[in-house]
Amino acid sequence: MELVLVAIVLGLLAVVYGIITSRQVLGAGAGNEKMQEIAGAIQEGARAYLNRQYTTIAIVGVVVGILVFLLLNWIAATGFVIGAVLSGVAGYIGMNISVRSNVRTAAAAQSGLQQGLTLAFRAGAITGMLVAGLALLAIAVFFYVLAGPLGLEANSREVVDGLVGLAFGASLISIFARLGGGIFTKAADVGADLVGKVEAGIPEDDPRNPAVIADNVGDNVGDCAGMAADLFETYVVTVGATMVLTALLLTSLGDLLLPMMALPLLIGGACIVTSIIGTYFVKLGRKQNIMGAMYKGFIVTAVLSIPAIFGVMTWALGDMNALIGASVVSETATVALGDTLVTEGAAEVVGGFTGMDLFWCAMLGLVITGLIIWITEYYTGTEYRPVRSIAKASETGHGTNVIQGLAISLEATALPTLVIVAGIIVAYMLAGLIGIAYAATAMLALAGMVVALDAYGPVTDNAGGIAEMAGLDDSVREKTDALDAVGNTTKAVTKGYAIGSAGLAALVLFAAYTTDLTEFFPGVTVDFSLKNPFVIVGLLLGALLPYLFGAMGMTAVGRAAGDVVKDVREQFAEKPGIMDYSEKPDYARTVDLVTRAAIKEMIVPSLLPVLAPVVVYFVITLIAGQANGFAALGALLLGVIVGGLFVALSMTAGGGAWDNAKKYIEDGNHGGKGSEAHKAAVTGDTVGDPYKDTAGPAVNPMIKITNIVALLLLAALAQGVVS
Amino acid sequence: MELVLVAIVLGLLAVVYGIITSRQVLGAGAGNEKMQEIAGAIQEGARAYLNRQYTTIAIVGVVVGILVFLLLNWIAATGFVIGAVLSGVAGYIGMNISVRSNVRTAAAAQSGLQQGLTLAFRAGAITGMLVAGLALLAIAVFFYVLAGPLGLEANSREVVDGLVGLAFGASLISIFARLGGGIFTKAADVGADLVGKVEAGIPEDDPRNPAVIADNVGDNVGDCAGMAADLFETYVVTVGATMVLTALLLTSLGDLLLPMMALPLLIGGACIVTSIIGTYFVKLGRKQNIMGAMYKGFIVTAVLSIPAIFGVMTWALGDMNALIGASVVSETATVALGDTLVTEGAAEVVGGFTGMDLFWCAMLGLVITGLIIWITEYYTGTEYRPVRSIAKASETGHGTNVIQGLAISLEATALPTLVIVAGIIVAYMLAGLIGIAYAATAMLALAGMVVALDAYGPVTDNAGGIAEMAGLDDSVREKTDALDAVGNTTKAVTKGYAIGSAGLAALVLFAAYTTDLTEFFPGVTVDFSLKNPFVIVGLLLGALLPYLFGAMGMTAVGRAAGDVVKDVREQFAEKPGIMDYSEKPDYARTVDLVTRAAIKEMIVPSLLPVLAPVVVYFVITLIAGQANGFAALGALLLGVIVGGLFVALSMTAGGGAWDNAKKYIEDGNHGGKGSEAHKAAVTGDTVGDPYKDTAGPAVNPMIKITNIVALLLLAALAQGVVS
Repeated sequence: MELVLVAIVLGLLAVVYGIITSRQVLGAGAGNEKMQEIAGAIQEGARAYLNRQYTTIAIVGVVVGILVFLLLNWIAATGFVIGAVLSGVAGYIGMNISVRSNVRTAAAAQSGLQQGLTLAFRAGAITGMLVAGLALLAIAVFFYVLAGPLGLEANSREVVDGLVGLAFGASLISIFARLGGGIFTKAADVGADLVGKVEAGIPEDDPRNPAVIADNVGDNVGDCAGMAADLFETYVVTVGATMVLTALLLTSLGDLLLPMMALPLLIGGACIVTSIIGTYFVKLGRKQNIMGAMYKGFIVTAVLSIPAIFGVMTWALGDMNALIGASVVSETATVALGDTLVTEGAAEVVGGFTGMDLFWCAMLGLVITGLIIWITEYYTGTEYRPVRSIAKASETGHGTNVIQGLAISLEATALPTLVIVAGIIVAYMLAGLIGIAYAATAMLALAGMVVALDAYGPVTDNAGGIAEMAGLDDSVREKTDALDAVGNTTKAVTKGYAIGSAGLAALVLFAAYTTDLTEFFPGVTVDFSLKNPFVIVGLLLGALLPYLFGAMGMTAVGRAAGDVVKDVREQFAEKPGIMDYSEKPDYARTVDLVTRAAIKEMIVPSLLPVLAPVVVYFVITLIAGQANGFAALGALLLGVIVGGLFVALSMTAGGGAWDNAKKYIEDGNHGGKGSEAHKAAVTGDTVGDPYKDTAGPAVNPMIKITNIVALLLLAALAQGVVS
Repeated sequence: MELVLVAIVLGLLAVVYGIITSRQVLGAGAGNEKMQEIAGAIQEGARAYLNRQYTTIAIVGVVVGILVFLLLNWIAATGFVIGAVLSGVAGYIGMNISVRSNVRTAAAAQSGLQQGLTLAFRAGAITGMLVAGLALLAIAVFFYVLAGPLGLEANSREVVDGLVGLAFGASLISIFARLGGGIFTKAADVGADLVGKVEAGIPEDDPRNPAVIADNVGDNVGDCAGMAADLFETYVVTVGATMVLTALLLTSLGDLLLPMMALPLLIGGACIVTSIIGTYFVKLGRKQNIMGAMYKGFIVTAVLSIPAIFGVMTWALGDMNALIGASVVSETATVALGDTLVTEGAAEVVGGFTGMDLFWCAMLGLVITGLIIWITEYYTGTEYRPVRSIAKASETGHGTNVIQGLAISLEATALPTLVIVAGIIVAYMLAGLIGIAYAATAMLALAGMVVALDAYGPVTDNAGGIAEMAGLDDSVREKTDALDAVGNTTKAVTKGYAIGSAGLAALVLFAAYTTDLTEFFPGVTVDFSLKNPFVIVGLLLGALLPYLFGAMGMTAVGRAAGDVVKDVREQFAEKPGIMDYSEKPDYARTVDLVTRAAIKEMIVPSLLPVLAPVVVYFVITLIAGQANGFAALGALLLGVIVGGLFVALSMTAGGGAWDNAKKYIEDGNHGGKGSEAHKAAVTGDTVGDPYKDTAGPAVNPMIKITNIVALLLLAALAQGVVS
């Protein structure tokens, strides 16, 4: 258990870093009175929204929490509550840091690009470390209490249920936060652009636009709070799933049980240290290349993580070359063990894997992360073919811009899929399913750094808005714009990273599902073969979910944006003095309107992945018996991954590419600002908005919820409460 | 064998109908000299394009044909040649009828709406009946020769190989035709609109636009020739797959073998008769409702098909309540037999199905067809929420139009998927995999009628173009526009129908794959379980194919349309007299340019589904052994269906909805023609063009090719030629 304690200490280290750095950031100058006034309005709006959002979510959370308690037990329910509450905390932290640093970044950018970058990136790093640290602490402390003071076996059903409950709490709250925040930010953004830029002909972030504060609030509640909750969820689910799979699959670990359960936590802890070190290397070089500064920080973290991971592994496992998990002969285990691949007929297995195998799987996770970052930069960066092809297509109009954007978004799924497929194969050949779990865990271990890169984006976006509204010198806006363009790419990177890791994590969850099935229902032989039509039915229904979910998200944004347009038109009509600055628009009214719309629209789509597995199981069981019900449900889980991976990758990459194609034109290419090409690019950007910030990223928690609900359903069925 | 002869006679009946009706249509007045001149230019361009397209395809075809001969045998190669040649013939017929009826429809519309409708629908019906008739004849005659004069056993490997070869030939040529034609038609359409409507400010189909003839040629080579080849392929593959599955799965049929092999052909033959009868009921009622007239014809055909199918089944099987295919005990058969569902553990099976079970499966196919037509009309018709929501979203600009269109296209996948899933479950519960095959066969049996409804669309579209260019009275254009709006819906219907049936047919092909695998490689135990990571790898790679294919198709249209824009700009610059009618644009030059572009762009994407299964099999086999290679390949086949179904459904429905949202606005809603909403709707229509007419529909043959190539690969591997 001392290993777990070390992980807890490392988690606390992240929190300490967060607190210290917060002081530094908050100690920086907050600009003039006008800037503070604007920032205050944004803060107020963001806080009001999050309060309303989490109050609504709390109602759903309490109901679901009671259900978990009734259908399972108090440990799972406690886990659920911890996951849910900390997910909310992660969201609040993301928002709070962001709304305070935006104005300070604007102030710092007055002194220079490096100063602006340092402040914005520090703010991002606080969110990143706190998200990773809180996630690590949530699992580590909960596990420590269960396996320590409460004296439960580390691989007992109670501990497994507790970890699954924790993951469920985190996921459920995150999907609401991701979707609600996503709808808010894009409804405000699209609405503000449509009526401001297009109809009234006033520039972006003009203080005369009543929706301008709502737009800036959106950056904080969607891109910061929603993203933080999302990555918190991804971390908890991935690390938790690895521990659950260890408990379920590796049944003959003996003395190695506790170290193997603690190892994912230790890897997470070690990488928090390397991430903290990495943040100090984010500095502009002589070429003033912002993306280069980001890469420096990431590469330092990744390289330092190699010996760090090797160190904690050696410490936990002792002999890195000893065989782990060998001599398992149950049929389930055949799929879990790598060294001796059973290719012809399922027979007894005596293979296993070594600590070195796991180490290589973790390295694979780092490589996958690096490749996904690189691929995402290729598809969303302004220097490469994809974005430039969209910019070029804008010359011939709105239609060709959108056609090319859609083509790029479809194409952008190919390389990440190949990377993930290669990752699955190599990890599996090294150490079976546990290998895949370790690759995913190592990916997520870098979450502190990745979130830091992402969270910096909306801070600079807001800083630009504040600079504009406060009438600061144009040079400030130029600096924040340069920072923001890189932010578009780093935002896309996090989404690709989250969805890529979700693909791996969901496979781990699926393995937990099939293992649970064998344990809970030894008498039911479930045919998971593709030859079973109910498997195909499950795959089709699973693949449908992200489509339906995406449709709901897109429609919600369209509808809420329409409301914003109407409200702004009304305000212009009621207060004709807005245009000549003689009257002030009622910002709060628009914020309030978007708040209500976002909260109303987030409920139904968020419940889709919760209810779908339950409905599919019961309907198919009714029609064709329980074995086929289980088969269809299992296939549904994979169908969601297979469908969702492509929907999410195409939406997030496509949206990022559209956004930067617009930025590329605004930099003076293809006619620059105000040209016909620019107008077409604005259309593409508008289309990409809900793609990349609402529907696309929310698919990540959606995939996980479907899988976790299936696990909980099995446990509930096994207890006989539901039947 | 007399059953097969009857099917041949019924197939010939379709050809006779086609010839007689052709005379009637060609006997109608062809309009004034100007109209004939324009129609002549369109004819010439279409013929030139098809000649070049099929010459290019022929080169690929000869190479692949030789490969089939070398890797398999001369029977399969002969089947390949027959399928390939007749697919080309189907395309030529579609084009030839269409280019001759367009001008006659324009002439007839001068007399009235009913006259225009009758002529255009007759033209569509000729294409429909000839496609269905030729497809039926291809399989029936080939099967008759193999099992009759050549004396091969009806379920022998040679016959199976021959039928698979036939399907391959049809599919391979069709994907080229569908994609090449699709790229041609949309590159010309988008290019003509961009430079004509948007830049030069001249209306659609204005004779001053050098791309106008190319645009009209496109309707004929894409929407007519491409569609005809596609549906020919769908028919051949579906009916062929049902026969192949009968031969492979039902190994103890005894005397019922020949009747069971002939039954799919007889069902096709019977429905040709009911389709011919149905065409005579397409008449406007008192309300002048064009869609209503179409429904009348379809409903008559569907209702008459019920007793017709029952009749041929009773005739072929004798006792409709006798058990067929019972007492099969091999493990493979457990999945093929419905009555006794094996839910817990695979054991000996003594179930089976009756003729009545098959009859109900066929009825299910008719119901699925009806539901898909109804759902497609809902999503693409101007009277319902989806199209109207896009039209309404156009009021707030290009961006919201596209967002809402994308939302609708995602949403439009849900109901068809649920219908297909329900169809799979019910058919399987009735008669196992054979039940699914019969549902698909009954769907395709109505192809004559469905193609008739579709092919009428481009004829009216062209008629409108000719009326415009020839300067006919505006009332003529109004009538052809009304006919064309319904054509948009019927075009979408055919695509939904083709992709829906492809979903079912691909399951049948997958069953053939797994059965072949057991027969060819009895020593290799392939684990198709979702627990096998190589199955997941296969699913992911399979789902990637339609995305990559769609990206290539969209990019190709964008690139070729860009070429058109440049060419037209150059012509305007070289001949400044074009605008005041003092000079004539060089139509042939643009046609030639689009021809070259389309042919160049169609090659690579078309080869993707041919090469992908081969590459995946060999790479995975190299990495993880042959059993995993087979597992990954099998999963790839299902991955293509799971991914492709959604890509195709969303693209075809979304594109149709965008098109009709524009039409709805042009009818005077939301500001009507020339309003800002109209401009936004034109953008949506442009985006929808390559969605619905290039990338989306070509996914249908793509899914089938992947499956057929896998079957051929197995056969080649078994012969030991490849290893």
